[in-house]
Amino acid sequence: MISKIRIGIVGYGNLGRGVQKAIAQNEDMELVAVFTRRDPSAMKAEEGVRFEPISAAERFKGLIDVMILCGGSATDLPEQTPAVAAMFNTVDSFDTHAKIPEFFETVDASAKRAGTVSVISTGWDPGLFSMNRMLAEAILPQGKEYTFWGKGVSQGHSDAIRRVPGVKAGVQYTIPVESVIEQIRAGEAPELETREKHRRYCYVVAEDGADKAEIEKAIVTMPNYFAEYDTTVAFITEEELRAEHSGMPHGGFVIRSGITGSGTKQIIEFGLKLESNPEFTASVLTAYARAAARLAREGAVGAKTVFDIPLGYLSPKSGEQLRKELL
Amino acid sequence: MISKIRIGIVGYGNLGRGVQKAIAQNEDMELVAVFTRRDPSAMKAEEGVRFEPISAAERFKGLIDVMILCGGSATDLPEQTPAVAAMFNTVDSFDTHAKIPEFFETVDASAKRAGTVSVISTGWDPGLFSMNRMLAEAILPQGKEYTFWGKGVSQGHSDAIRRVPGVKAGVQYTIPVESVIEQIRAGEAPELETREKHRRYCYVVAEDGADKAEIEKAIVTMPNYFAEYDTTVAFITEEELRAEHSGMPHGGFVIRSGITGSGTKQIIEFGLKLESNPEFTASVLTAYARAAARLAREGAVGAKTVFDIPLGYLSPKSGEQLRKELL
Repeated sequence: MISKIRIGIVGYGNLGRGVQKAIAQNEDMELVAVFTRRDPSAMKAEEGVRFEPISAAERFKGLIDVMILCGGSATDLPEQTPAVAAMFNTVDSFDTHAKIPEFFETVDASAKRAGTVSVISTGWDPGLFSMNRMLAEAILPQGKEYTFWGKGVSQGHSDAIRRVPGVKAGVQYTIPVESVIEQIRAGEAPELETREKHRRYCYVVAEDGADKAEIEKAIVTMPNYFAEYDTTVAFITEEELRAEHSGMPHGGFVIRSGITGSGTKQIIEFGLKLESNPEFTASVLTAYARAAARLAREGAVGAKTVFDIPLGYLSPKSGEQLRKELL
Repeated sequence: MISKIRIGIVGYGNLGRGVQKAIAQNEDMELVAVFTRRDPSAMKAEEGVRFEPISAAERFKGLIDVMILCGGSATDLPEQTPAVAAMFNTVDSFDTHAKIPEFFETVDASAKRAGTVSVISTGWDPGLFSMNRMLAEAILPQGKEYTFWGKGVSQGHSDAIRRVPGVKAGVQYTIPVESVIEQIRAGEAPELETREKHRRYCYVVAEDGADKAEIEKAIVTMPNYFAEYDTTVAFITEEELRAEHSGMPHGGFVIRSGITGSGTKQIIEFGLKLESNPEFTASVLTAYARAAARLAREGAVGAKTVFDIPLGYLSPKSGEQLRKELL
């Protein structure tokens, strides 16, 4: 029996708690400690979980194989990943697509100096969706790729609603337009405007006495967030919001409509339907922590993405088992 | 500009012709020669294609980077792959699932002796479906996996029909049962009998004067092929068979219904809808030929499967491009 992979979690929001649950599902892993910016002594005591301040991380060198970084991409990870990669192997879900190349370079330099492995930008998009975009393009170079998100809650758009004057609370769902997905599945390769791919649906709780018509107008005309979409606004009560919209479902599709030979249509589709976005993302990060541990054992160093790692490294099974059971 | 990857094709049936078409879609590859058991001088002349007898392969050492083996799994590949791997890097689509472990060992030994790379059992099942089964299991260890095939033509079952006395010609379609797929997509994880997952549909041309009731009975009661399924037999004319059933469509789905945390349902689905099974399989083999060439350049040797190869190796794009454009 190989010893268990020793995991640390940095950040204890929805994602960090999801990683904790995912580790419990994987017998080859154990959670050593959760590192938090909050006061560890004030954290709710939980059986078998050790809380530590982030500043204590360095004392765990040699005791943790992989740190799973569960902070946000806006401000946490740009600082945390290079800093933690200087001490530990890491996995993160950095998802600011436009800044990935720069982030990769910074993390790569830090990890190479320290002799660690740092798997960046995993999860489902970037992550599983990226893998499927790449794979489908490599197999069907002549073709067209579509990514649809939803039905799911978009945190950024929900935040934007809540900034509108008169709004007390709200949640936004991104909804892919089924009819165009069916068109693509049928082998068509339409050129689509932003508006044709997704709709946006907002459930809003208004402040007492607020002008609902004004709120609706402010939302549907908001540039970058809603103006480019067909947006529906529905006003609900706080109780309804809590009862029906407190989950974090998400999902989506990556579809490539390609051509081989002389006009032969071929469709590759990958899809996710998730009841909890953070728990699923956490499960992907956890599988990549296994890959990071194996890469490190083999002497690899530097930043890695989902494109650089053999799929077999994500599984606890041996190559022999994989060939026998899953090929 | 890196020089092109020089490809040889062994076997010129539907799959071999598909590889030829796929190479034409990939600017970083060129077809050096097609090796055939037939008399090369009798092969239909075609612009830019050089035909050679298989016995001449050895003379192409140093002139071909990767041989794509397009023979069948029953008798061709068990001999061809180890023999050709002793001279060239290879890619094949060996698909007798039960014999893959033994095949891997034989090919691995041959390739290691010769210092070549041999990517075995690519295509879509084994191949892309295997990758998705493995990936989904690694991410959602608590869950249930389903593979559905079709709607598509099964060569083995079509052959079985044609062996029935009184049958002149025939084709068999495997059809997944949509209602159970919808059940799984909705988050259920049913235990399914063989009969509940797929139906079989046979289009049969009877010999003049043959007893159609006898033929139908012989088909639907045939053990291993049809008895375990709900099978429908329809008699058609030879003209109808030619006009409507000469394509080779196929496809299917790999779906994992998993659980994270405390009963949170998560669904991962991968699906293919193919107008031509051999052309698509050929496109997968061709992408893996690129990976084989790169592995060989890096000094790798021995047999490899889809689990061993980083996805980025399938793409002509650099790591930098992939991170910028597809992550």
